[in-house]
Formats: sequence, structure tokens, C-alpha cells
Amino acid sequence: MSNFIYSRKIHFADTDSAGVVYFSNLLSICHEAYEEVLLSLGINLSNFFTDKQLAIPIIHAEIDFFKPLFCGDLINIQCQVNPISDKVFDVNYLVEKDKNLIAKAVTRHICINPETRESQFIPSYLKTLFNE
Amino acid sequence: MSNFIYSRKIHFADTDSAGVVYFSNLLSICHEAYEEVLLSLGINLSNFFTDKQLAIPIIHAEIDFFKPLFCGDLINIQCQVNPISDKVFDVNYLVEKDKNLIAKAVTRHICINPETRESQFIPSYLKTLFNE
Amino acid sequence: MSNFIYSRKIHFADTDSAGVVYFSNLLSICHEAYEEVLLSLGINLSNFFTDKQLAIPIIHAEIDFFKPLFCGDLINIQCQVNPISDKVFDVNYLVEKDKNLIAKAVTRHICINPETRESQFIPSYLKTLFNE
Amino acid sequence: MSNFIYSRKIHFADTDSAGVVYFSNLLSICHEAYEEVLLSLGINLSNFFTDKQLAIPIIHAEIDFFKPLFCGDLINIQCQVNPISDKVFDVNYLVEKDKNLIAKAVTRHICINPETRESQFIPSYLKTLFNE
Repeated sequence: MSNFIYSRKIHFADTDSAGVVYFSNLLSICHEAYEEVLLSLGINLSNFFTDKQLAIPIIHAEIDFFKPLFCGDLINIQCQVNPISDKVFDVNYLVEKDKNLIAKAVTRHICINPETRESQFIPSYLKTLFNE
Repeated sequence: MSNFIYSRKIHFADTDSAGVVYFSNLLSICHEAYEEVLLSLGINLSNFFTDKQLAIPIIHAEIDFFKPLFCGDLINIQCQVNPISDKVFDVNYLVEKDKNLIAKAVTRHICINPETRESQFIPSYLKTLFNE
Repeated sequence: MSNFIYSRKIHFADTDSAGVVYFSNLLSICHEAYEEVLLSLGINLSNFFTDKQLAIPIIHAEIDFFKPLFCGDLINIQCQVNPISDKVFDVNYLVEKDKNLIAKAVTRHICINPETRESQFIPSYLKTLFNE
Repeated sequence: MSNFIYSRKIHFADTDSAGVVYFSNLLSICHEAYEEVLLSLGINLSNFFTDKQLAIPIIHAEIDFFKPLFCGDLINIQCQVNPISDKVFDVNYLVEKDKNLIAKAVTRHICINPETRESQFIPSYLKTLFNE
């Protein structure tokens, strides 16, 4: 997979009383793009996020904001999945509106056993996402 | 306008640790349907929700839940706008998944001057939404 | 138990671009009061909400708004738990700021087996909450 | 000011269907600590976040997660405000539970004129927060 694009309008609930999107909500909107990537593999999201053998929690997230977003804005999120090790991968997001870069984000994910919290190898079906 | 349909997948952020959509998030998802209705009129949502002459806050909301929703579920929301008086209107929502009724909600809106909080008449451009 | 009071400041994340608390967030804030009531019984909330024998989902919620709330406002929520049947109970909420009634809400809860979705009796430890 | 501590229980609404706090919600909870710091200066938060002369948006946020958080957990957030330039400052957060480090976060804020988006000097009343 090379690039994946997720399109989404900004909802009223995404905004705050400063009149723009609340900062951490944009990370949440980026995560929706990651979910669409998973859906594109035919993954059942409900099972994926409650799997008792394999959990893939976020260990790091960061976001840079270049321009504000307003209710009703249509954004496109370009999404790439990149391996960091055989147990860790990054999802990189570029948030654009009208071809202007609005924000840039990354979430870092580690594969673990949710009971023992021990790290696990990235399952092969996720490796097809890697941008190679 | 008769019926308006809004389609939406359930995001991970919509769920809670009971494994299903958190109850008040479904009201928020219904509000997205109302926003799409407003967009269909050509309304600029950012201006609409920050208008200094006319605010249309929600004075009542209610929702009945018939079945749970899970991450990744695709829902359709049927949305109707109905006048209650010349200053108040309801937005009615039917939330469906695979043609099963999942939830039923309503939000009641009053037109006011946001400074004085005095009630105002429903503007004529919104009356075109009424289901008559 | 008669009345339970939960105090809470309004956070920036609770607000929307109209400058006040987003409507469904106030239901979520009311639910925090219900959680405090459960904690006052010594309940482990994480186990409570993920229990595989007994789930207590919300089947109905409603809220009336009398006055707007702003970021930084200190609110008190009076909370009462009332039986509706031997399987269903209501949690009633009065939201106040500076002794003014801001909103009034209710959440209706049913006891079920989360696998079969069959209704169950209200467990006795919850009956001590009933306002009698 | 040296250190500021904000205490908070994890709410059901903070969690997701993986059973733990949803990643971006912890950034939002950190922002609550920043709001408490502002309140400790006697700032009116509603005016602060809607000020037409001076806005202080977040231009960068990041968070590292070391351990999961569950509904009902009591956390303490240590919060420090540090100048980066005469127009930019960081808020650093250490999230702890039972004296274990759960997460570490930072939000970077820039002072701007909200109309022109031009950068402004940090107002003197905020400089009293700097950890010197």
C-alpha cells in the first residue's frame, strides 16, 4: 500500500469555544483514518480492538498544527503505515484542506499480549500496509 | 424536504470500555446528521454556530436505545425537521443498522438572540426543511 | 441514600464553537455523577463496566437545558437513583450553578446478561442506592 | 510557580472498547491541568479562550504512554509551564497513578492575534507561571 486518503467534514462536536477544532480531537480524527486503513484490509474493527491475544496500543502520539480548522471544513487525511521494528509501527498522517497543509501527526503502535503486556511480532496481515 | 439520510461508520473513539458506543456519543452522531441537513441548504456551518444575531440552542434532547452499536458498524440516520411553534423546531432521528432500528432520538431547538436570550422567529431559510 | 452531590468544573473540551457546553457533553458529565455514586458503594468501576455476567446499559436518556454553561463554570449535580421495576432503574440529575437550575436529566438503566441480552434482576448492592 | 498538581478520576467516557483510556483523551485530561493552572491565577477561562485580542493556540502536542489507565483510576498530573521564546511556551505534564509514571505529555502554545494570526508577546500575567 502506498498512500491512503480519508475524507471527513469537521463536526460541531469537534470544535471548542475558541471557535476551532479542539487540539486533541484532530488526533482522534486521524485515528479514524487508521481505522479506515484497517477496514480496507477486511478487518472486523470490533474484534480487532477487543482481541484477547493481540492488542496494538499507542505508545506515542504527536501532532503539529499549522492552520486552524472550522466547523463544516472538508479535510483530507493522507495516511501511511511504516514499520519501526518487527514489533512497532508508525502511522503518519498529513491533514489537508483545499490543498493546504493543516496539520501533521503520527501515532506509534506496539504489538503486545494484552494480558501479560509482553511485546509480540507484528502480524503478517498488517505488514501488507507497509509503505515499501 | 421529506427525509434526509446520513451514513456513518462507528469510530473507535465512539466506544467505551463496555465495548459498545457510549450513550451520549450517539446523540452527538445524530447532531452530525442535523449538520448535514444544514449543509444541504448551503449554510456555512462555522458562521451558523457563531452567529451573533441568531443562536439556535438545544433546549431538550432525548434518545431511546434498542440495540448496541460496535466499532466499525455502518449506520444510517434518517432525519426529519418538524416545527413545534414559530420559534421552536424538533429534529427527529431514526438510527438504523442493516435495516434494524438501533435508536430513536430527538433534539428540540429554539431560536434566540444570543445576547439577550430572547426568543426569535425561525428564519425562513430553515422553514424549507419542514416536513410538510 | 437520599441525595448525592457531584461537583465539577466545566472544561474547555466540554465547550463548542457556540461558546457554551456542547449539549451531549452535559449528559456525559451527568454520567460522571452516577459513577461517583457507584464509587461511594465501593464498586470497582473498571470491573463493573466490563462485567461478563451483568451489564446495565442505558436504554433511555433525556435532558432539558434551562441556561448555558461556560468554560470554568463550577456546577453541582444532585443525583438520585430510583427503581422503575425489579430490572430497571432511573438516575435523575439536577445540574445547578450558583443555586440556579441549569439542566435536568435522566438516564434509564436496565440489568441484562451481556451475552444473551436477557433482562436480569437489579443486584441487591445497587438497591441500597434507591431513594426510599 | 514550581509544580502544580491536578487530581482526577478516570471517567467511563474517557475509555474505549479496548477497555482503557482512549489515547487522545489523556491529552485532553492534561489540558484540564493547564486550565486549573490558569484558574489559579484568577483567570476567567471563558473570556481567556474567546479573547479577540489574544489567542494562545496549541501548535504542537505530544504524549508517551507507559501504562494503561482504567475507569475509576485516580491520577495525579504534575504540570509545569516553561518559556520557549518570548512568544511561545510549553506546558509539560507527568501523569502518575499510585506513584507510577503512566504518561508524559507536552503542549506547545503560541501567542497570536486571532484576527491576523500574527504572533504576540506572552502577556506578563502568564510569565508568573514560568518555572524559574
